[in-house]
Amino acid sequence: MKHFLSLQDIDSLPDWVNEAITLKKDPYQYKKMGQGKTICLLFFNNSLRTRLSTQKAAMHLGMEVMVMNFGNEGWALEYEDGTIMDQGTSEHIREAAQVVSQYADIVAIRAFAGLKDKAKDEAEEVLNGFAKFASIPIVNMESSTAHPLQALADAITLAENKTKDKPKVVLSWAPHPKALPHAVANSFVTLMKGQEVEFIIAHPEGYELNPQITEGCQIETDQEKALEDADFVYVKNWSSYSEYGQVLSKDSGWMMTKEKLGNAKFMHCLPVRRNVVVEDAVLNGNQSLVIQQANNRTYSAQIILKKLLEKL
Amino acid sequence: MKHFLSLQDIDSLPDWVNEAITLKKDPYQYKKMGQGKTICLLFFNNSLRTRLSTQKAAMHLGMEVMVMNFGNEGWALEYEDGTIMDQGTSEHIREAAQVVSQYADIVAIRAFAGLKDKAKDEAEEVLNGFAKFASIPIVNMESSTAHPLQALADAITLAENKTKDKPKVVLSWAPHPKALPHAVANSFVTLMKGQEVEFIIAHPEGYELNPQITEGCQIETDQEKALEDADFVYVKNWSSYSEYGQVLSKDSGWMMTKEKLGNAKFMHCLPVRRNVVVEDAVLNGNQSLVIQQANNRTYSAQIILKKLLEKL
Amino acid sequence: MKHFLSLQDIDSLPDWVNEAITLKKDPYQYKKMGQGKTICLLFFNNSLRTRLSTQKAAMHLGMEVMVMNFGNEGWALEYEDGTIMDQGTSEHIREAAQVVSQYADIVAIRAFAGLKDKAKDEAEEVLNGFAKFASIPIVNMESSTAHPLQALADAITLAENKTKDKPKVVLSWAPHPKALPHAVANSFVTLMKGQEVEFIIAHPEGYELNPQITEGCQIETDQEKALEDADFVYVKNWSSYSEYGQVLSKDSGWMMTKEKLGNAKFMHCLPVRRNVVVEDAVLNGNQSLVIQQANNRTYSAQIILKKLLEKL
Repeated sequence: MKHFLSLQDIDSLPDWVNEAITLKKDPYQYKKMGQGKTICLLFFNNSLRTRLSTQKAAMHLGMEVMVMNFGNEGWALEYEDGTIMDQGTSEHIREAAQVVSQYADIVAIRAFAGLKDKAKDEAEEVLNGFAKFASIPIVNMESSTAHPLQALADAITLAENKTKDKPKVVLSWAPHPKALPHAVANSFVTLMKGQEVEFIIAHPEGYELNPQITEGCQIETDQEKALEDADFVYVKNWSSYSEYGQVLSKDSGWMMTKEKLGNAKFMHCLPVRRNVVVEDAVLNGNQSLVIQQANNRTYSAQIILKKLLEKL
Repeated sequence: MKHFLSLQDIDSLPDWVNEAITLKKDPYQYKKMGQGKTICLLFFNNSLRTRLSTQKAAMHLGMEVMVMNFGNEGWALEYEDGTIMDQGTSEHIREAAQVVSQYADIVAIRAFAGLKDKAKDEAEEVLNGFAKFASIPIVNMESSTAHPLQALADAITLAENKTKDKPKVVLSWAPHPKALPHAVANSFVTLMKGQEVEFIIAHPEGYELNPQITEGCQIETDQEKALEDADFVYVKNWSSYSEYGQVLSKDSGWMMTKEKLGNAKFMHCLPVRRNVVVEDAVLNGNQSLVIQQANNRTYSAQIILKKLLEKL
Repeated sequence: MKHFLSLQDIDSLPDWVNEAITLKKDPYQYKKMGQGKTICLLFFNNSLRTRLSTQKAAMHLGMEVMVMNFGNEGWALEYEDGTIMDQGTSEHIREAAQVVSQYADIVAIRAFAGLKDKAKDEAEEVLNGFAKFASIPIVNMESSTAHPLQALADAITLAENKTKDKPKVVLSWAPHPKALPHAVANSFVTLMKGQEVEFIIAHPEGYELNPQITEGCQIETDQEKALEDADFVYVKNWSSYSEYGQVLSKDSGWMMTKEKLGNAKFMHCLPVRRNVVVEDAVLNGNQSLVIQQANNRTYSAQIILKKLLEKL
């Protein structure tokens, strides 16, 4: 693994999940591995879980941590080649990436989709720009199209909670007042395609995810049918992909309820809007895994950092 | 002590003050106590002294520190139960508090009064929300109604400077162009009620603090009379409590001057507006204890963190 | 060296450059020197290189680091003496500097020129205010009129790359859409005046730097003539000094090109606007030293911190 940009960079998911579960039992066991090594966390967007859990993971490994809110604290970056930079941007990704590479051993980056321009978002200019010009490993802390640290935490959570060899997992769209990116849903779908599960994606018409990502997946527009006998229900809002970045529906009939959930375990990446995405009764009940998922963010980050440190 | 939310959480104030003074002589003596422990500082408001001194205190104890400006860097929090979260807030305190608890061993929080809605401010939704839903100790870095780390630093400063068994201490209101919270004044009054002092609160009419807090205290609206033969004069502005959050007077006659101060020592929590709250001659003179008070913020935080670490 | 405010605070530049080059080979060799010592970095302006490289330098020396964006996170500071502080500022530099001095062993400060009021900028109220009232060493991380950490990194870079005893160095003005400060140019000129070099400053008429700084320097308004047989070309925009802070020209004829550069090495402090200040071909080519200059920021900061730590 040169960079950790997506789940595809993981050599063997089951092994890494197991290793993460082992790390969780004794988080400081590799405290010496990161000594004299520095990670720089660059945030182009807000963050709570990712910010704290990635710092914590690095500290567990004995690394030094530098956190920077790039948008507010640094310079507006240019990503296009050949631009005459006489407008709003004052530093090119070519310089920024090379420069940051000299101050850290690993750089982790969060840069959300703008949801205005599909091609631009899919080009992943921030993440790929750093990956292209940096001389050190890049870690994706949620990019326009993927959130692999979340998906890896979800894999750990599923492994900790599954009670059958091939559980039924449903990814169910939920309503939300604002247009949200597809990154979490994309990475969860990608994760599911490689797992021993019965997997169904449920969403209203018009909310189809990128068909290249969902290729081969069962898709259902009847939520009730999809949820039948589910073992795990992952709920998440995303905006339309075909009518890119649009909110086509806020239909509260798609909100997850305790009744709909049945005996399934409830999953969500957080933050979650209560009584819009999911009702209180689910989050307050003992079928909810959301706090455990958040906890596993530390260990998904830690296993990735450990793998990268091993190759430095 | 489960949490440090107010002065009431201190078992024995004189003992802790003495222990803080001992820590100050050799700040790194418990450097091993916090190893492998993390504190997360969450700021919902600006901070200079609290930000740096609490970090320093944690470093003295060997802890790892994560600092987050929650308002700018995280998600807008919801505190009400049962809300349909389809408006401005995107994460509920229930999740935020549980999640943060998994990334740190202690969480410290600064969240000022809004000064618009007394009941809301007195509910201390941020501090109490975290205290209710977190699974780790909470430290108050100034909440709507209390600033106990400041009061503890003030207690240390008084102990270091008092030359008689029962000094006379005056808390004197001062003018200020903006409406300020009651937190510092409240905590200082609470502190004084438990000390061997002659204590008087002086303020113009209409500036009575919460009567539940000042119960039993001598209150004076004649500043000159209150200041007579004072040993320590603590100056502080606060907005009206009865006409909640209003600025009723900017009467510069209440500004502290060298002449009024007499032979007393001058105290203020800082930041202080020169020649509005107190004249230059006082701050520049050798009766001012404000720099020493600020220094003692490190040791008030350190004794609290030490006590919490001992119970982890 | 009490403070590091400007290049004048360096005892012996050649020795310090050599020592920095030695540090670079084994950055952690003085890891024990900074143990139990804290540096506080105060940013009044944005920063990428300075923010990360100064942190890295301090970590190399084993120091604890506290980073604060003073403008957003702290209180608006007053610098004038005797002001009645009933307007926008809420804390005086006298208190701020004394207070911060108690939480750290060294404080580093970035505060750019406002470019509105020459006398005010030249008074260096932020940097000098801290230097005057602080009780600990102050490090200049770019002030209104000087950027000595950059100049020291430039000296290291020149030492690493020079192939003759007395190279020809040209500081060439470049166009830029915005008004920029003179700090980098000033410090580079000051550096050159003490080096064994043939030094020429090239700029359009009206862009003369502070004549006290350029006294004795050869100044050329014919860029082509200045660049003849240059070994190093340092390109930088600055606004007018005589018509203080004005952009008098955006003449793209002054942009540095591969053709103009000839066989010289290209230097710039970054961030740089591509195809405005310098064309892509220069930055992408192997005559560019800009990435190495940025790397040397770590070692210029580290040698300064080491020298200050030795005297603590």
